[in-house]
Amino acid sequence: MKPLKIFCDVKLSSDDQLEFLKQSVSPHEILLPENPAASVLSPGVFDPKFKQADIAFGQPGLESILSSENLKWIQLTSASFTRYDTEEFRKTASEKNLKITNSSTVYAEPCAEHVFAFMLADSIRLPFSLKTRITSSSQNWADLRKSNRLLRNQTVLILGFGAIALHLIDLLKPFSMNIIGMRRNPKGKETVPIITKKDLPQTLGKADHVINILPDNEESTQFFDEKMFSYFKQDSVFYNIGRGTTVNQEALYRVLKSGKLRGAWLDVTDPEPLPPGHPLFDLENCYITPHTAGGFSEEKESLIRHFLKNLERYVQEKDLLDRVL
Amino acid sequence: MKPLKIFCDVKLSSDDQLEFLKQSVSPHEILLPENPAASVLSPGVFDPKFKQADIAFGQPGLESILSSENLKWIQLTSASFTRYDTEEFRKTASEKNLKITNSSTVYAEPCAEHVFAFMLADSIRLPFSLKTRITSSSQNWADLRKSNRLLRNQTVLILGFGAIALHLIDLLKPFSMNIIGMRRNPKGKETVPIITKKDLPQTLGKADHVINILPDNEESTQFFDEKMFSYFKQDSVFYNIGRGTTVNQEALYRVLKSGKLRGAWLDVTDPEPLPPGHPLFDLENCYITPHTAGGFSEEKESLIRHFLKNLERYVQEKDLLDRVL
Repeated sequence: MKPLKIFCDVKLSSDDQLEFLKQSVSPHEILLPENPAASVLSPGVFDPKFKQADIAFGQPGLESILSSENLKWIQLTSASFTRYDTEEFRKTASEKNLKITNSSTVYAEPCAEHVFAFMLADSIRLPFSLKTRITSSSQNWADLRKSNRLLRNQTVLILGFGAIALHLIDLLKPFSMNIIGMRRNPKGKETVPIITKKDLPQTLGKADHVINILPDNEESTQFFDEKMFSYFKQDSVFYNIGRGTTVNQEALYRVLKSGKLRGAWLDVTDPEPLPPGHPLFDLENCYITPHTAGGFSEEKESLIRHFLKNLERYVQEKDLLDRVL
Repeated sequence: MKPLKIFCDVKLSSDDQLEFLKQSVSPHEILLPENPAASVLSPGVFDPKFKQADIAFGQPGLESILSSENLKWIQLTSASFTRYDTEEFRKTASEKNLKITNSSTVYAEPCAEHVFAFMLADSIRLPFSLKTRITSSSQNWADLRKSNRLLRNQTVLILGFGAIALHLIDLLKPFSMNIIGMRRNPKGKETVPIITKKDLPQTLGKADHVINILPDNEESTQFFDEKMFSYFKQDSVFYNIGRGTTVNQEALYRVLKSGKLRGAWLDVTDPEPLPPGHPLFDLENCYITPHTAGGFSEEKESLIRHFLKNLERYVQEKDLLDRVL
């Protein structure tokens, strides 16, 4: 086999990492752009070198992909596929006979821990408890203690049943929760009860925790709207670690303001970040982290290792991991 | 058996709860004081009715206990035994042939979930992430993502190996952490490696998370002092859900200020609450909740059920649950 040319626009953390990548792919060759992508979620910048690439590792833009003459496989550095989930891209990928893989395996664990941290923080009313200087044995103190909840026996509904959901289910095991998943096409082999969209009104009515991991696509845009929130159980909690566009934020504001929801925990919004003074910032029961779910100290290293594992499979003509197209 | 008289100074949440308690203990009788204790952690007020009690359910003061003529068993509503862990009380208990049980089983789950929430919140830098309005793809944002940690493969040391520790170990199972316990008298049957005090310098040097659940007694006073903190690993995290008196707060302040510790999460302090302007409040890496660990919506109900279970065992002359004396 002729050495492959691998175009990599991933912004690595150190020269050591680049050196490790270069040595690990040898005899194949790494092509570096003038400017790497700003982050693992940002589109890469067009670079003439892309033309020669056999493989792309990063977030290549459509312009780059159209320019390519040899491209056979793109390894995305994101867990999502949103930027590429278009008619135009699918057509290009099909014409060029491209394989596309993402890095959802890498992000399943940190994303699951992020939403799990949200769930536990909500259960013990952490943000409020850290702020208050309440006095032990006061009535307010007794009320605060009483507003803490155990996860045991609560019902959690997970929308978007991919790698993150499966990892989260593992983490929740010791809590004896009632876990329900929603996916477009149930496979029948899931380890928890699965519903489809038509069952949502009923299931939302009994879910204490609603976890939104829906990807961004036509079907999911504004999925959580006024009507959907109307099905929620009183005092339930809403979490979004999928994509901000799946939620109608005005409807979320109203349902939070009304006191029907105990809280909303969002790692994603639309846009990101929300503009200063956005109404969601004013709500005491709306908690927003700036799309940091998925980040972790060994993130770049894990992305490289994931790519290397797939490169080995690619060379051996085995099925690729996390293949999306 | 003659109906027993049960003195109950627990401040119940509703008349329904009292009714439930009265009916459940029947034919035995509930004696109520003029004023119930302020909380499940506060000492009960002396009441002349105590004299006739066979059983006490709550937090009876020493004066009450000394006044008693028939008392045989005290069911405490706390997980701790601190208030009673004195020479004088032990002497009284021994002379009166008293059995003492606490409610540690009731508090194991909420306390374990509280410290677990702390661990996950620290791992994703939750308090900072909720405050910042950082912009995606900025360098600060990349740095924040990178400062997130996964729990997997980290080392956690738990000091005080009782019911809370055992429950916490269950919750941590899916994370594949290295869990080490410290207890005064290892039984040899523990499911995780156990060390004793003499091994602390070495073990603290490799622990990423140090969880203090030590009870308050002579041996544990100021257990975490300047010297003990000097053994801690760089970037480790300290948690206290035991008793505030086990920590030298000046030493903790210094080790947090120096940047050696990534953070400290305290549910207990000395005194409680800390006075306004206390230096620990000024530290960005010191997080304090107001002794709310253990509180949960069904707390009183669970305490009652725990007492009823023990009452049944008492009547049947079986070994009592959570017996401490």
